[in-house]
Amino acid sequence: MHPISLLTLPNVFSYAGVALFAATGAMAAAPRKHDVVTFIFFAVITGLGGGTLRDLLLGAPIVWVAEPTYLLVAATSGLLIWVIGYRESARRLLLWPDALGLSAFAVIGADKALALHAGAAVAVVMGVLTATAGGIIRDITAHEPSVLLSREIYITAALTAAIVYVSAQPLIGADAASIVGFVAGAALRIAAMRLGWRLPSYAGGVLGRTSVEAEAG
Amino acid sequence: MHPISLLTLPNVFSYAGVALFAATGAMAAAPRKHDVVTFIFFAVITGLGGGTLRDLLLGAPIVWVAEPTYLLVAATSGLLIWVIGYRESARRLLLWPDALGLSAFAVIGADKALALHAGAAVAVVMGVLTATAGGIIRDITAHEPSVLLSREIYITAALTAAIVYVSAQPLIGADAASIVGFVAGAALRIAAMRLGWRLPSYAGGVLGRTSVEAEAG
Amino acid sequence: MHPISLLTLPNVFSYAGVALFAATGAMAAAPRKHDVVTFIFFAVITGLGGGTLRDLLLGAPIVWVAEPTYLLVAATSGLLIWVIGYRESARRLLLWPDALGLSAFAVIGADKALALHAGAAVAVVMGVLTATAGGIIRDITAHEPSVLLSREIYITAALTAAIVYVSAQPLIGADAASIVGFVAGAALRIAAMRLGWRLPSYAGGVLGRTSVEAEAG
Repeated sequence: MHPISLLTLPNVFSYAGVALFAATGAMAAAPRKHDVVTFIFFAVITGLGGGTLRDLLLGAPIVWVAEPTYLLVAATSGLLIWVIGYRESARRLLLWPDALGLSAFAVIGADKALALHAGAAVAVVMGVLTATAGGIIRDITAHEPSVLLSREIYITAALTAAIVYVSAQPLIGADAASIVGFVAGAALRIAAMRLGWRLPSYAGGVLGRTSVEAEAG
Repeated sequence: MHPISLLTLPNVFSYAGVALFAATGAMAAAPRKHDVVTFIFFAVITGLGGGTLRDLLLGAPIVWVAEPTYLLVAATSGLLIWVIGYRESARRLLLWPDALGLSAFAVIGADKALALHAGAAVAVVMGVLTATAGGIIRDITAHEPSVLLSREIYITAALTAAIVYVSAQPLIGADAASIVGFVAGAALRIAAMRLGWRLPSYAGGVLGRTSVEAEAG
Repeated sequence: MHPISLLTLPNVFSYAGVALFAATGAMAAAPRKHDVVTFIFFAVITGLGGGTLRDLLLGAPIVWVAEPTYLLVAATSGLLIWVIGYRESARRLLLWPDALGLSAFAVIGADKALALHAGAAVAVVMGVLTATAGGIIRDITAHEPSVLLSREIYITAALTAAIVYVSAQPLIGADAASIVGFVAGAALRIAAMRLGWRLPSYAGGVLGRTSVEAEAG
C-alpha cells in the first residue's frame, strides 16, 4: 500500500495548484477580450490538462471525472479572473505561485505514478507532464508559442523536482522527499527568474563548432 | 439500466453529425489546395476527434474502434468534398447544419457520460468537449486560430445544450430532454449567427475599470 | 494467438525507429537554440508520440510505461543531437531513414492493432497514426506548420504501407506481409522525394471547375 502522506492527505495543495494554473489559463484569454465562457474554458483546460494527460497515460481514472470538485475549482478561478480582472503587475506576481504550483505538481505527478507501480524513469516523466502539459495545451489552443519555446528554466525546474522526489523517496520516505523535491524545484525556478539563469543554449554541437573553426582557420 | 432513447436508437443522427463535421474538416484543407489523402485525414480527425476525446476521458472504448462504420462515414465525407468541391456560399450554408451538429453532439456526449454514471458537472463537460474538440483539433492541426478564439456564441451554445439536457433529463426523461436540449442549443447558435449576438467581452474586470477611472480622474 | 514474427521479435527495429524520429524532434528545437532539456523533451514527444496515441486509442498499456527503455532511447537520441550537433546536409540525409521509419511504424502500428483484434480499417488508421502523430505533435508544439500541410507524399506513404500490410497479412502471413508493406511504403516515399511526385491537389472539385468554365464562357 502507498502510505497516506502529505501528498495524498491534504487535497488543499492540489486544489490550490489547479486554481493557480487555471488563473494563468484565463489570463491567456484576456488579451483577446474573450467572453466569460471562453475564460472558463481556458481555465479548465489549463488547470486540469496536465493531470488529465498523466491519468490517461497511466491508465488511471481521470482525476476530475472521479472528483468533480476539481472542475468547480478550475471554473471558479476562471470566473474570478473575468470578474475581478488583473493588472499586468499581477501577471508578474503570479510567476511566484506559478513556480510553487509547477514544483508541487511535478512531485504530485511523480508520486501518483509511483503509487501505481510505475518505474522511476516513468514517474519522473509523469511528474514533468503533470506540471507542464496544462500550460502547453493552453498555449497551443490560444495559438501562442508554447512556454517550452521561451528558453527559461521551466521544464528543468519540474524535472528537478520530480527527480529529487523519486530519488529521495526510497531513502527518506514520501513525506520528507516531497518537501525536499518541492523546495528544490521551486527554488531553482525562482532563482532562475530572479537571477536570469538559463541553461547553455544549443551552439551547434561538436560538428557546429568544428565548422565554425574551419571557417575561422 | 440506461433506457433506449432517441439518442441511442437511431445512429443516423450520430452519422449525420460525423459526416457534417468531417466536411468542415475537409474544407479546412481546401484553401491550401491539398491532395485527397490530406482532405480525408482532416475529415476524419475533425469528424471523430470530439467523440474520441470523450471516450478516452470516460475510459470507454473509442466509438470508431468498436464501430468502424464511423471511419467510413467521415472518410467518405472528406472524399466527396474533394471530388465535388464547394463554393464559398456552401461554407456559409453549412453553418446551419453545423449549428445542428454542435447541439446534437453536446446532447449525445452528455448522455453517454450519464449512461456511464458520471455526475452532472462531468456530463456537461463531456457534452461540450464532444461538440467542440473536433473543430479545435482541426484548427490546431491546420495551424489556424481555433474557433474558440473567434468570440462567437459557439462553446456557449454547446454548453447550453448540455446543461439543459442534463438538468431536464431527471425531470422529463431522456427523450424529451434530448429534444429540449438540442433545440435550446441550436436555437441559441442560430439566433446568435443571424442577429450578431455575443456575450460581453472582457473589459478588465473590477480592477481594470478602476484603473481606467483612475486615469480619467 | 498472434504469432511471433519479424515485427514482434526484434525490438531493435522499434528502437531504431524511435531513435530516428526522436532525432528529428531534437532538430526541430535547434533553430531556436534551445537548451539540452528542451532538446530531450522534443525528442521524447516526437519519438514516442505516435505509439502513445495508438496505445491510448486501442486501450492498451502505453508502450514506454511498460518498457521504459523506449524513454531512454528517445532521450539519448535528443542528447546526442545536442552534443554532436548536425549540419543542414544531415537533415537532408535523415530524410532517408525517416522514410524507413515512417514505413516501419505504419506496419508496426497496424500489426499491433490486428494483434488486439481490431478490424482492417481500424488497423490501417492505427498504422497511419503511429507513423505520423509524433511528427504532428512535434510541429504543433514547436508552433510550426505541420508536415501534413506540406503537400508531400507523406501520409500517403504511411497509408500505403499499412494498407499493403493489412491486405497481404491474411494471404502470405505476418512476416512476408510486413516486408512487402514496409518496402511498398518506403519505396513510394523515397521515389516521391527523388522524383518530386505529388498527388493531384484540390482544384475546386466538380463545382469549382464548373464555375471556372462559367467565368471563361
